[in-house]
Amino acid sequence: MQKADGMHYAPTGKAGAVVRPGEFSFAAVGLEHGHIYGMTNGLLEAGAALKWVYDPDPAKVADYRKKYPQARAAESEEQILSDPAVKLVAAAAIPCDRAALGIRVMESGKDYFTDKTPLTTLAQLDAVKAACARTGRRYFVYFSERLHVECAVLAGQLIKEGRIGRVLQVIGMGPHRLGPPDKRPDWFYRRAQYGGILCDIGSHQIEQILYYTAAEDAKIVSSQIANHNHPDYPELDDFGDVTLAGNNGTSGYFRVDWFTPDGLSNWGDGRTFILGTDGYIELRKYLNVGVSTEGDHLFLVDHKGEQYIPAAGKVGFPFFGEMIRDCIDRTETAMTQAHIFKAAELCVRAQMEAKRIEPWEVPAK
Amino acid sequence: MQKADGMHYAPTGKAGAVVRPGEFSFAAVGLEHGHIYGMTNGLLEAGAALKWVYDPDPAKVADYRKKYPQARAAESEEQILSDPAVKLVAAAAIPCDRAALGIRVMESGKDYFTDKTPLTTLAQLDAVKAACARTGRRYFVYFSERLHVECAVLAGQLIKEGRIGRVLQVIGMGPHRLGPPDKRPDWFYRRAQYGGILCDIGSHQIEQILYYTAAEDAKIVSSQIANHNHPDYPELDDFGDVTLAGNNGTSGYFRVDWFTPDGLSNWGDGRTFILGTDGYIELRKYLNVGVSTEGDHLFLVDHKGEQYIPAAGKVGFPFFGEMIRDCIDRTETAMTQAHIFKAAELCVRAQMEAKRIEPWEVPAK
Repeated sequence: MQKADGMHYAPTGKAGAVVRPGEFSFAAVGLEHGHIYGMTNGLLEAGAALKWVYDPDPAKVADYRKKYPQARAAESEEQILSDPAVKLVAAAAIPCDRAALGIRVMESGKDYFTDKTPLTTLAQLDAVKAACARTGRRYFVYFSERLHVECAVLAGQLIKEGRIGRVLQVIGMGPHRLGPPDKRPDWFYRRAQYGGILCDIGSHQIEQILYYTAAEDAKIVSSQIANHNHPDYPELDDFGDVTLAGNNGTSGYFRVDWFTPDGLSNWGDGRTFILGTDGYIELRKYLNVGVSTEGDHLFLVDHKGEQYIPAAGKVGFPFFGEMIRDCIDRTETAMTQAHIFKAAELCVRAQMEAKRIEPWEVPAK
Repeated sequence: MQKADGMHYAPTGKAGAVVRPGEFSFAAVGLEHGHIYGMTNGLLEAGAALKWVYDPDPAKVADYRKKYPQARAAESEEQILSDPAVKLVAAAAIPCDRAALGIRVMESGKDYFTDKTPLTTLAQLDAVKAACARTGRRYFVYFSERLHVECAVLAGQLIKEGRIGRVLQVIGMGPHRLGPPDKRPDWFYRRAQYGGILCDIGSHQIEQILYYTAAEDAKIVSSQIANHNHPDYPELDDFGDVTLAGNNGTSGYFRVDWFTPDGLSNWGDGRTFILGTDGYIELRKYLNVGVSTEGDHLFLVDHKGEQYIPAAGKVGFPFFGEMIRDCIDRTETAMTQAHIFKAAELCVRAQMEAKRIEPWEVPAK
């Protein structure tokens, strides 16, 4: 597992096939973000068969096939979309292109599984909603910072068991390492392509807040962005934060940033704090800072005491198998389409409504 | 040290007398909040002499004198205010009465040291500012969650040394234990008296954000309060949060609440996260949850690596000695009056402008 850089964080976990060998085939299309490796791992571990890969860049295809030699290199996207054996297309396109690709996939009669962020504009959201309604196909999203983190999965289970009472608020911190700026693709620095920090890495946080609070909808109470320290990349937001108010009386706050220092043993000290009426949970997702470079630390405090639960190896990643079953059975176990669309909408709105943090003059007395 | 209840948290620390014995006398007036014990400890350790104590409730005076027998019980506040030997009056009155008491103290020619929150209305703030200007006396505040916490003091020193570069943002969490609700005084549940959660325990957080970000002024971007789970006490805010934008382009967010679960080994898992351009600091102030019941844990990450610094016993509490010297030398080393007034103003404004968090109906599609 690559720890230095979140873009190449591709966890592997417990295998738990939900289909017979060859029963459910998928293809990978669009290899712009390293998350495609985590998405592929999750699908393979749940028993799916990887049939094809396609990207316009042959170098990306070659790299992918080194890891997954079973994937045949398709000559075109169309070759994959016209293959009736393919049930699901997994894709990590440039964020602004994810919706259009998804619509083409769904129009071809297949389900779609995109890297987060799901999309970058409200017009794209409307088009995706219409395409889902028209085709009956699903638009799944890889919200890896919850779905592919065992302590985050365990937190959801503990909350459902009522271990911290009624959830009141979620605070999330999603710091990320930028790394050498010139190793990033051009689109990473173009707002119209990557969508802005709140839309991009903020999407993980918004999805988590909706999930843990069980809010069906939320209002953006405040959202802010900044470019604090990257003047050479004026369209990069290196900082952002958002406060959300859920329709069920819950609330959420998160901060995302690109300031992970070089000395951190991992790409980001991602944290989640979930406050309930009868306890709270803290997640230290990718390391226990100053103590351990291993991830998946869950701290649970309730009326009985304090508990430290190392969650690695405990619960696996049930999302992938559930998603495959949802594709086959046309159920909504892994994640409802309404939840995904609401998260997508709030990411875009948070970014659209964001105030820019800037110094201001203190008024004279 | 009482760990179960923040109201009775009264740390003791390294002694470091800044005056000769008997050179600087103070009195304690107003024993409504247990913080008066921490305030007294800090002053005594810095070499001040405790001459008098007064409270209208003889039981509170008797308790205080058990701990500090050197304090003579005054018959009235006036007896203390008219004693020219007393240079400073330390007080933990009911929050709404703190300003009026402070003005009487300053009018008597003495400096004033009040428990946080400094005051509860903008009218009180104006009156206090006028009294300071008229008398030349000082209005100090016991922001204990920074001034009387060694890891918080150390964080300030590390930031001044430039260890995390330029500070960009501070996140604070100030959970508190309510304890048996009927053990709290009546004023604790009356908004007009305690000032609301953002004004009361939020004042610690606002002061910290101003201090660590070095902002001279800040705007309230959003502020929220709730009574999530205490219907028997309708004027209690059991939850609140605030986002601040500093005039120097920094920002801050904090959450305060009364939901510390019974099982926590301390009254609250207070945290501070300070993000800089070149590193970050996390404080676990009163315990290391699931690991240690001892306090003062500082985690520093910079470009060189991750460091865990146990801060207990490292730096002491320089505030008290500096405050005494400020009183004698008429300097502003401990804390400027402008900083205190700005924190006070923002506490009151955050509370005044707070939106109430409540469930809402999701609009029909």
